[in-house]
Amino acid sequence: MPERKSAPARKGLSMLDAEKSRKIYAQMKEDQMQYLIVSDISSINYLIGKRIHPGERMMVLLFDSVKEKAVFVLSKLFPQEEDLGCPILYFDDVDDYVGMLAAQMPECGTVGIDKEWPARFLLRLMELQPQNRFINGSYVVDHIRQIKSAEEQELMIASSRMNDEAMRRLIPLTGKGYSEVELAKELGKIYTELGADANSFEPICCYGANAADPHHSINGTRGKKGDSVIFDIGCKLKGYCSDMTRTVFLGSVSEEQKKVYEIVKEANLRAIAAVKPGVRFCDVDAAARDYITEQGYGPQFIHRTGHNIGQDTHEYGDVSSANTNVLKPGMTFSIEPGIYLSGDFGVRIEDLVLVTEDGCRVLNEVSKELTVVEME
Amino acid sequence: MPERKSAPARKGLSMLDAEKSRKIYAQMKEDQMQYLIVSDISSINYLIGKRIHPGERMMVLLFDSVKEKAVFVLSKLFPQEEDLGCPILYFDDVDDYVGMLAAQMPECGTVGIDKEWPARFLLRLMELQPQNRFINGSYVVDHIRQIKSAEEQELMIASSRMNDEAMRRLIPLTGKGYSEVELAKELGKIYTELGADANSFEPICCYGANAADPHHSINGTRGKKGDSVIFDIGCKLKGYCSDMTRTVFLGSVSEEQKKVYEIVKEANLRAIAAVKPGVRFCDVDAAARDYITEQGYGPQFIHRTGHNIGQDTHEYGDVSSANTNVLKPGMTFSIEPGIYLSGDFGVRIEDLVLVTEDGCRVLNEVSKELTVVEME
Repeated sequence: MPERKSAPARKGLSMLDAEKSRKIYAQMKEDQMQYLIVSDISSINYLIGKRIHPGERMMVLLFDSVKEKAVFVLSKLFPQEEDLGCPILYFDDVDDYVGMLAAQMPECGTVGIDKEWPARFLLRLMELQPQNRFINGSYVVDHIRQIKSAEEQELMIASSRMNDEAMRRLIPLTGKGYSEVELAKELGKIYTELGADANSFEPICCYGANAADPHHSINGTRGKKGDSVIFDIGCKLKGYCSDMTRTVFLGSVSEEQKKVYEIVKEANLRAIAAVKPGVRFCDVDAAARDYITEQGYGPQFIHRTGHNIGQDTHEYGDVSSANTNVLKPGMTFSIEPGIYLSGDFGVRIEDLVLVTEDGCRVLNEVSKELTVVEME
Repeated sequence: MPERKSAPARKGLSMLDAEKSRKIYAQMKEDQMQYLIVSDISSINYLIGKRIHPGERMMVLLFDSVKEKAVFVLSKLFPQEEDLGCPILYFDDVDDYVGMLAAQMPECGTVGIDKEWPARFLLRLMELQPQNRFINGSYVVDHIRQIKSAEEQELMIASSRMNDEAMRRLIPLTGKGYSEVELAKELGKIYTELGADANSFEPICCYGANAADPHHSINGTRGKKGDSVIFDIGCKLKGYCSDMTRTVFLGSVSEEQKKVYEIVKEANLRAIAAVKPGVRFCDVDAAARDYITEQGYGPQFIHRTGHNIGQDTHEYGDVSSANTNVLKPGMTFSIEPGIYLSGDFGVRIEDLVLVTEDGCRVLNEVSKELTVVEME
């Protein structure tokens, strides 16, 4: 393979425009950041409507807040035919491309760096510009990306609607004897039938004790009576991700399983009820976590309550005790409390939510009532 | 989805052992590098036999060349049951994990940084350790990884043998009217039948003018008489990649196509003939490039001649005019000259080679004779 390929631009989302640039320059000026280096593939796609996978090659969208101009520094292996709304500086593999980037930054000042930028580029730039101050500047774009536009919200809703339908078709298959890997394959077919672009992540379909390990890699395990079955699935539709988890029981359900299921469901509902503008992410986490802890399962809820989502399944921001940022309308994230009883069973219930002016809209509509799937 | 999953350890490749550690410490000492931060997923897999996908979380294997000890700093979301040959320092999402890493590096000195390490971790570490000097230290592990062990060589050979068989089954389908996307799907089935783990990259199967664009994204295009058809395909087998390209013609071949094909083939053969220990990568590039240039197609050979390969399709090292490093026995890389006549047709012929004591072994055995596939 000579190089990786780039995907066509997202339909309907525009090239670098005045509004996005204005927000970026305003934040940079407020923070006295002269330059901002954006390299994240999804951030660049968000800003100029092109999803380019440069592989090991450097790709930088450079903003200069003093001159209020941007330049896209790109390998000539990815020639762009359309107007991207900013000039493109092409380089060859044998060029000193970091030097070319540095030449676009002649002033002395603070340089914001993309949180994803690989060290091989950053260390070389620092060597060339010892006079500059380098800081993590990702928040400038990340805070803008966190707030989904009306158009993005529609895509998130449509992606989750498709995921709901996939979940409804997938759950009954667990009663027909499919293994974990077979369920994942069937899910692939379902997404293709429904018209999804792709999975948004490797699906998790797991039985019994495997469901008690949130990092279980799916395998040939088949379900047995009394298993809890976790389905954590998501698709991409027009570039936007869905992500949902449901837990069902196979053939029968024990009293302990019922109890744990109802605790997780209540934690999910309490966290959702806590979501509204002005509340902090950590408060939403606490709404789920405190309830689970009160019920005696705190140590078995071993991950954060959720993560922001959009073009990427995991985007900047999470629903954790460490995140004191406040919710704003247009944010989309997951609410996914879980309880894992190692070696025995696990329960996780996950919905995506969209923060509205006075609360939130839950993007998933698949029932959360305790479900026992009959074995055929 | 709560987190990404980790794959099981590569079978048969061991935990951090004395030999690998000794090589790393020796190079670090020679270069007066006290600490080395390794974060690349494949490098960590190479060193401790675990392929862990930490997602947005930090994962660092830290080497201290003075104390000759290593420590693995890892999120507690990825608990390891087996002995990895070094202690593990687990952190929680709400911990100051970069601070915990810094505490493992109490001495003042030079810190080698993985070329892939994201800026969000590096900038924070630099803030905590203003007294240290930070350099790109990836070469320490990359130079070791470039030389494949006997066991790795066997896996590379087996992966390419499987890829040869897949190519032999795939080529005839082009005469049966399959579109580009359909060919890619058929290839997926072929790899499954053959027992491959996965594609090693998104396959390129393209017709006519699409074959003149090395970054073409496959689509619904079907072949027509006189098209050149490029197949650039690869699979993963037991964690090691294959990668091969063949170009055939559909129904008929023009004089110009024949001429271009023979030039590319000769360039491929000349580059292969140049491969032996002590020769520089740039000399191999020149062997292909100079011939194509002499024949008048220099400007149409728009990429480097090849790239190193192993666990990843693109590994450290490439066959380009900028790479003056010398070849050593055990290195594996691609030889893939191409000529692209924009809007018309393209030809690329790619083999993997393994450098031996006195030359090289070509890992692909699919014929490179000019082939016209009859349309059915």
